Amino acid sequence: MADAYRGVDVTRIRSGVRTIDVDRAATEEPLEIRLHNRPFSVIMRTPGSDRELAAGFLLAEGILKGADDLGTIEYCTDPRADHPENIVNASLTNQSDEALDRLLAERRNVTTNSSCGLCGRLTIESLRTDAPPLSAAWTIPASTLVDLPGRLREGQAVFDSTGGLHAAGLFTREGKIETLAEDVGRHNAVDKVVGRMLMLERLPLSEYVLFVSGRTSYEIVQKAFLAGIPLVAAVSAPSSLAIELARDCGMTLIGFLRDRNFNIYSHPERVVS
Amino acid sequence: MADAYRGVDVTRIRSGVRTIDVDRAATEEPLEIRLHNRPFSVIMRTPGSDRELAAGFLLAEGILKGADDLGTIEYCTDPRADHPENIVNASLTNQSDEALDRLLAERRNVTTNSSCGLCGRLTIESLRTDAPPLSAAWTIPASTLVDLPGRLREGQAVFDSTGGLHAAGLFTREGKIETLAEDVGRHNAVDKVVGRMLMLERLPLSEYVLFVSGRTSYEIVQKAFLAGIPLVAAVSAPSSLAIELARDCGMTLIGFLRDRNFNIYSHPERVVS
Repeated sequence: MADAYRGVDVTRIRSGVRTIDVDRAATEEPLEIRLHNRPFSVIMRTPGSDRELAAGFLLAEGILKGADDLGTIEYCTDPRADHPENIVNASLTNQSDEALDRLLAERRNVTTNSSCGLCGRLTIESLRTDAPPLSAAWTIPASTLVDLPGRLREGQAVFDSTGGLHAAGLFTREGKIETLAEDVGRHNAVDKVVGRMLMLERLPLSEYVLFVSGRTSYEIVQKAFLAGIPLVAAVSAPSSLAIELARDCGMTLIGFLRDRNFNIYSHPERVVS
Repeated sequence: MADAYRGVDVTRIRSGVRTIDVDRAATEEPLEIRLHNRPFSVIMRTPGSDRELAAGFLLAEGILKGADDLGTIEYCTDPRADHPENIVNASLTNQSDEALDRLLAERRNVTTNSSCGLCGRLTIESLRTDAPPLSAAWTIPASTLVDLPGRLREGQAVFDSTGGLHAAGLFTREGKIETLAEDVGRHNAVDKVVGRMLMLERLPLSEYVLFVSGRTSYEIVQKAFLAGIPLVAAVSAPSSLAIELARDCGMTLIGFLRDRNFNIYSHPERVVS
């Protein structure tokens, strides 16, 4: 089983001084859940307790009502599978093949997806996008980046009164706020910002920086990539897969941007002193 | 348009002293996105910038490649709709009815759902569950609850080294930790804990308290409800819909449980001094 975290190279900026170091990022990998060896769902998770995760997920989805409905739940044993450690197969008791057919067909009739941008992919292989990497060649001073949290906060109307909203802000390379959005969901805040610029016919956003509250997972990087944003910064930690995708797609990914310090996890060449 | 936050009654426990007050919770409501007046997706969001949210979502889902693909995007004008302010309809340019049929059919062939437990519902009406409310009559002292954050932290292996994982812990009414799980996703951590107990044939979890890091949204309450957990506590803020569902389903919902203080948002009768 994969570890719950993994080592990643990081460029740390502390009081303006740059050092190269190794950091740890929480592991994020797709888990494909199969029912009777047929694809059912793909969710992003930290490896560990995968069978339990699949069981709890099937309960919450209404597929299981309780332990009596669960036959076996096991890691994939198909020798042709690329990543059997990321595939769990469940069997249901008292389910004829016909009843299972009906169950899967019913779900298929639910046109569905979540705001996370990757649930709804049938298999692990389909998660990657094939758009060309981001090639913006501009740079931004570290001193501009450390001002972003304060500027987002100034623009945030609701957070102070509830403590309950995430925010996403789009900034110019000079650190001026272009637009921001708030939402209970981090993904939604990013979708609102990107959607607003799309409606203004301003895509691709290759001259902008996206700054988000909270953590960065795979989906935030994916959404920013599809909008053409070359630099994404966040208040908290990125996941391992967020870092991996950012590296692959030519994006500068920054985490722990707070108290005028930050870490750079990919493409540090866009940040200058 | 609904406000981004709304007033909620709250019972505050500060240094063991109980006061009744009014608080503000970030609004969480479903948004139904339609394509050419046909149901496409339901996502949970904070009202505001809904058309932008829908546009950004459709971009991230690959339905739009850019502004040129977007015809109109408007709130529902159907006089029969119950909540037209929670429905947005988009039309695509250069899409024949046949091409749209193919697009929707392709999505239907993707068996899909997210870990959040509600994306994948076709319409707003289908979000509610019809299980009977939680009726557990036990009580728990405030002094037991304020110990939970420290006990979860003691059990958390990974967080300290990465800052990147959410945790969910299941506690007995005496405040003893029964099991815990960590994950990049809050929903997954809850699914892991519930799934583990399901596999041990221990459901319903009517004698337990669930404590989660981070915020509480609708889906966390829904997952706990389906597992039969009568008390859910979190480090941060609950959403308006989390509070509403907890009230409806007989669950005690606690937020801002930190520094030995907390707020009770529903069914405070289960907490005694």
